[in-house]
Amino acid sequence: MKIIEFAKLGNPADVLKLKELPSRLPGAGEVRVKIIATPIHPANLLQIAGQYAATPELPAVPGGEGIAEVVEVGDGVEHLKPGQRVLMAGAGGTWRDELTAPATSFIPAPQGDAEQLSMLAVNPLTAHLLLTKFTDLSEGDWIIQSAANSAVGEMVIQLAAQRGIRTVNVVRREILIPGLKSIGGDVILTDGPDLAERVMKETGGAPIVLAFDSVAGETFERLMSTLAFGATIVSYGVLSGQLPQLNLTSVIANDVHVRGFWLAKWYETASQEDRQAAFGTLMPLFAGGQVKTRIDSRFPLEEISEAVTRASESGRDGKVLLTPNAD
Amino acid sequence: MKIIEFAKLGNPADVLKLKELPSRLPGAGEVRVKIIATPIHPANLLQIAGQYAATPELPAVPGGEGIAEVVEVGDGVEHLKPGQRVLMAGAGGTWRDELTAPATSFIPAPQGDAEQLSMLAVNPLTAHLLLTKFTDLSEGDWIIQSAANSAVGEMVIQLAAQRGIRTVNVVRREILIPGLKSIGGDVILTDGPDLAERVMKETGGAPIVLAFDSVAGETFERLMSTLAFGATIVSYGVLSGQLPQLNLTSVIANDVHVRGFWLAKWYETASQEDRQAAFGTLMPLFAGGQVKTRIDSRFPLEEISEAVTRASESGRDGKVLLTPNAD
Repeated sequence: MKIIEFAKLGNPADVLKLKELPSRLPGAGEVRVKIIATPIHPANLLQIAGQYAATPELPAVPGGEGIAEVVEVGDGVEHLKPGQRVLMAGAGGTWRDELTAPATSFIPAPQGDAEQLSMLAVNPLTAHLLLTKFTDLSEGDWIIQSAANSAVGEMVIQLAAQRGIRTVNVVRREILIPGLKSIGGDVILTDGPDLAERVMKETGGAPIVLAFDSVAGETFERLMSTLAFGATIVSYGVLSGQLPQLNLTSVIANDVHVRGFWLAKWYETASQEDRQAAFGTLMPLFAGGQVKTRIDSRFPLEEISEAVTRASESGRDGKVLLTPNAD
Repeated sequence: MKIIEFAKLGNPADVLKLKELPSRLPGAGEVRVKIIATPIHPANLLQIAGQYAATPELPAVPGGEGIAEVVEVGDGVEHLKPGQRVLMAGAGGTWRDELTAPATSFIPAPQGDAEQLSMLAVNPLTAHLLLTKFTDLSEGDWIIQSAANSAVGEMVIQLAAQRGIRTVNVVRREILIPGLKSIGGDVILTDGPDLAERVMKETGGAPIVLAFDSVAGETFERLMSTLAFGATIVSYGVLSGQLPQLNLTSVIANDVHVRGFWLAKWYETASQEDRQAAFGTLMPLFAGGQVKTRIDSRFPLEEISEAVTRASESGRDGKVLLTPNAD
């Protein structure tokens, strides 16, 4: 089998190496799978470069999610059979062409668009949890988000649109507006000091009950100022590197709740039921094509250097996938 | 009857005037009461001086709470009888010797320490709601608060101690430590940059699950840094006039929830059940003397100027009460 490995931190195109190892037969309770597709995320590249919160033990295999097909199962594995599609989610080391691991590492997946399913367990899952964990949203409710053109932001737009939830989407550049309109964004505005007034004008003053922010700094402050009494703002990133000032008038007099979300912690603490509920909702949407992540390009493991180079280019249009077993 | 009135905003000792008016008989559904005791709170003085968020319509009678005795009831009032003690809570205009108002304005109160009951509906109620609305606390849990020597802070200490909840109390001056120890504070510390380390040392690193802050600015930031994973910080004031920076690492990686509390809004939105639950818990504690607000002095309405002067002196030790019907 082939794996992608890095033995030291550094520029991904330099430090990542393809390595061949013998296959490992599944032991009791284990499953051997061949990997169909696994995405390259910015967080993977940051981790390889040593710029991520958690530094891995080296050598390490990157990759946090993907889709695979069961090749063979060990003793005692009843619910998975050869040929079954499975998700790899919440575990590391997916940039490889096959993997032998405990059956509990794999989530049975439907047939359908395998590439879409391979990118479900990070960004779409984050968007889904943002939309479900904090506030009971009903059809017609308004929410607002920053960094609306991020992978999570685009998923929020699509998943909200599926449920009839209306989105105000804040971006930094006007050029991004038509793309977000086309995937179902209701209102798309560029960030700026008068954001709250422009939001009110566009929504007709409808109450905004939930905000998602991954920019922090003044953008967080401005999103907060658009919110209705009793609304919640969820922070899930600090892209600007700036901490916001906390508007205590919003918190005290307007009863705005401030919360945070971190997917790694969700994977640590989610119950089996939580996982089934989340994946059970998302998989049919992505398998059937109602919701889509844009794909820029596909690379075999042998072209890992080209793949990570492409993944870090600003001109790309969507995700870069590794497809280790493509013809 | 006598009322205290101000027709313009200004220094309370100058603008407050005693005024005599004819009594008013209770109409259908109304009750006439004579007022036993009503406290002077800092918020009352700020409002008279025009330094409070909401400015009243003038002329106005100050005062937000008190205890009274029913004198007579109008047609259709069944649950209140002459001689019954009642609380006045969540309504304005209590600085007077009698009041005729709808029966729903009054909450039946037990016999017992009337002066203590007269000060229950603002500070003790705030402390009670802080301790019950946000987190399910169990005996042995640790909480932390700033401005621990404030009227609300001292109530938090006493009400927490009643339930076996342990308190870390942050104050600005060392001289305040013995007083807070004596009313049941477990740990009392002066504020400072190394607060989190000193808290950890005093608590043995026990998780702190809830924080109350009325200081804002750096004190809010420091309280937040002492909290356990999943804890909540409740802001209910901005005494320092400084907004805090919001530590998003606490919010995202440590899942700290940020909430606010404002008593006026609680009175606007609380259901009859909410009120009964809150007052039903507090009244026996205060009527029976298990929990106490310190009283500095008592004044008749005729000495309103002396009373408000005393209430704004820093040397006083407790609340100043108006006792309009004292012998």
